[in-house]
Amino acid sequence: MPPGRSRRTNSVGSEFGLIRLLQAQAARPDRQVYRGIGDDAAILKTSANEWTLITTDLLAEGVHFDPATSSYEHIGYRAAIANLSDIAAMGGTPRFMLVAIAIPPTCSTKQIQQLYRGMMRAATPYRVRLVGGDTSASKQGLFLSITLTGTVDPRRALLRSGARVGDRVYVTGTLGDSHAGLGLLTTPRRPTQASLRPAQTRFLLARHHRPSARIAEGRWLLTHGLASAAIDLSDGLTGDLRHICEASGVGAEIFPEALPISPACRAYALARGIDAQQIALQGGEDYELLFTVPRRKQQQFDRLAANTDFCMTCIGSITPKRLGLRLRTEAGVTRTLPVTSYEHFLRPS
Amino acid sequence: MPPGRSRRTNSVGSEFGLIRLLQAQAARPDRQVYRGIGDDAAILKTSANEWTLITTDLLAEGVHFDPATSSYEHIGYRAAIANLSDIAAMGGTPRFMLVAIAIPPTCSTKQIQQLYRGMMRAATPYRVRLVGGDTSASKQGLFLSITLTGTVDPRRALLRSGARVGDRVYVTGTLGDSHAGLGLLTTPRRPTQASLRPAQTRFLLARHHRPSARIAEGRWLLTHGLASAAIDLSDGLTGDLRHICEASGVGAEIFPEALPISPACRAYALARGIDAQQIALQGGEDYELLFTVPRRKQQQFDRLAANTDFCMTCIGSITPKRLGLRLRTEAGVTRTLPVTSYEHFLRPS
Repeated sequence: MPPGRSRRTNSVGSEFGLIRLLQAQAARPDRQVYRGIGDDAAILKTSANEWTLITTDLLAEGVHFDPATSSYEHIGYRAAIANLSDIAAMGGTPRFMLVAIAIPPTCSTKQIQQLYRGMMRAATPYRVRLVGGDTSASKQGLFLSITLTGTVDPRRALLRSGARVGDRVYVTGTLGDSHAGLGLLTTPRRPTQASLRPAQTRFLLARHHRPSARIAEGRWLLTHGLASAAIDLSDGLTGDLRHICEASGVGAEIFPEALPISPACRAYALARGIDAQQIALQGGEDYELLFTVPRRKQQQFDRLAANTDFCMTCIGSITPKRLGLRLRTEAGVTRTLPVTSYEHFLRPS
Repeated sequence: MPPGRSRRTNSVGSEFGLIRLLQAQAARPDRQVYRGIGDDAAILKTSANEWTLITTDLLAEGVHFDPATSSYEHIGYRAAIANLSDIAAMGGTPRFMLVAIAIPPTCSTKQIQQLYRGMMRAATPYRVRLVGGDTSASKQGLFLSITLTGTVDPRRALLRSGARVGDRVYVTGTLGDSHAGLGLLTTPRRPTQASLRPAQTRFLLARHHRPSARIAEGRWLLTHGLASAAIDLSDGLTGDLRHICEASGVGAEIFPEALPISPACRAYALARGIDAQQIALQGGEDYELLFTVPRRKQQQFDRLAANTDFCMTCIGSITPKRLGLRLRTEAGVTRTLPVTSYEHFLRPS
């Protein structure tokens, strides 16, 4: 996990007094605000037929991205996916994008063009329209802020807060690939790559540079009313599952053997002498969806899922809050999932 | 004018190839986009009764603000006003705010609280609701990105592009006060302050630290259908008038003797040996509205304006494009207004 990475969701770091202050302010009743701070995106009751989602991110050079390991096009691509993924996690359809950048003197116009190209390559397949922005100078380091709006059916958005005891926990895709790809980039000279096939290396790098936003999966979950809660995986499975549990007032147990791990990620873990499950549990920026399905809907879910080409895996279940976050192996052994937090930037003392 | 200040509008620096690329991309027809990149805010046709405005800014330490001369509360206040002013310039009503910050290790939680307090103090009088955001680390320097939405009557938003030859040019408030206030802060030890009365010093500092967003004036202009074009003064009168002229395909002449200059600003100019008109023409960040009124509506404008407590001054008129931007003195002497540009950050060569 990249050091210093921030929470990149709509919730803003619960350990700070300032956040409580803000949430208190934002929590003042407002007839148009269905959800404010605290989920992947705000939900605004903008019209009777369609509600508006809105989310914003600020990405900093040296914290969220490093031009030494990513091209500007990839930096732009991943930045757009991070926001698209927030809309996906609500079951929404992305719509309009605004991009503000602060450009250091060391950046060339060509690099900024590449950055925009990456953003547009990620966003255009979803018919997202760039409608505004801001450009300015930065004395040091590139900063990139994306705001994305979307639409969602009234009252149906997928929230973090809907998970109930007994619900099954699912993820889309495979876990840890982005982290493994980053590992290949940051420490490429170890004997690791020799033990990965070229196609596996390419796969992991592609998952890091060009992750997917699971818009179609989110829409499908919403349309069929199958999910009780959802979030996108930016902080890593453990961290984001914790957000769902906190928002829903529940605990969860994860079946480590069930975690979907790609052969490439397994090969990477083997070569590096790391536990692949650990990467799957903690590796960030996969931008897969983590969601819960009520037990009574599981049959319906399985039946409908069989008719899609989505990759979705049941990895655990929701438990009472007092049990916390746990791993439960096939042998029935349980152990507490370690707390991992990336909210450590502000005077970590 | 603070060195390195960027354009802080929705238009993104016309001199770069990348901007043309983006505008071409953004210009693809979209039934919901009434105005995209190129005005103070984007205008989205979100419902039949009400359209949505959206604008975003990214402010960088050392470029847009300096904690050495502004408290964090003032930095937050001004950042919010900069966005509120963009909504004011469209005749809109501000509604929802998202705040993303990248916080350097040198910043304390208390300072960030002050920053938010300033933003909320500026925004709350307009019933703007904070609905989301993002917090992250910055390796160096504080970065602050605000996204603000608003609403506007369909088809009635004030645009930059509506000025026509013969229209009168107006501004709200007085010009140059923010620049003078900044001057007092950045070079306070010159004999200047001695020649300003304490109340004048307080006034100029207040105009710099806590400028106004002319929301009521913008709404009034829109409601009565009085303005043909509008923009807010962030770059300074000359720069922002140029934006109106470029968007409208016209020229303009300014009557220097008519420029509304406060006694405090005049006293400042005198003490510093600077031409007060020059400060009024080029000083940035006043966040007053600059707007044009068709000549046939001028009588109506004057009659209605007499019933308000708004301060609005006629400072010039719109001319054919070929005449460019000029000053016309009472004696009838004309001279070209010098081009001033703050778009000089990206490899100024």
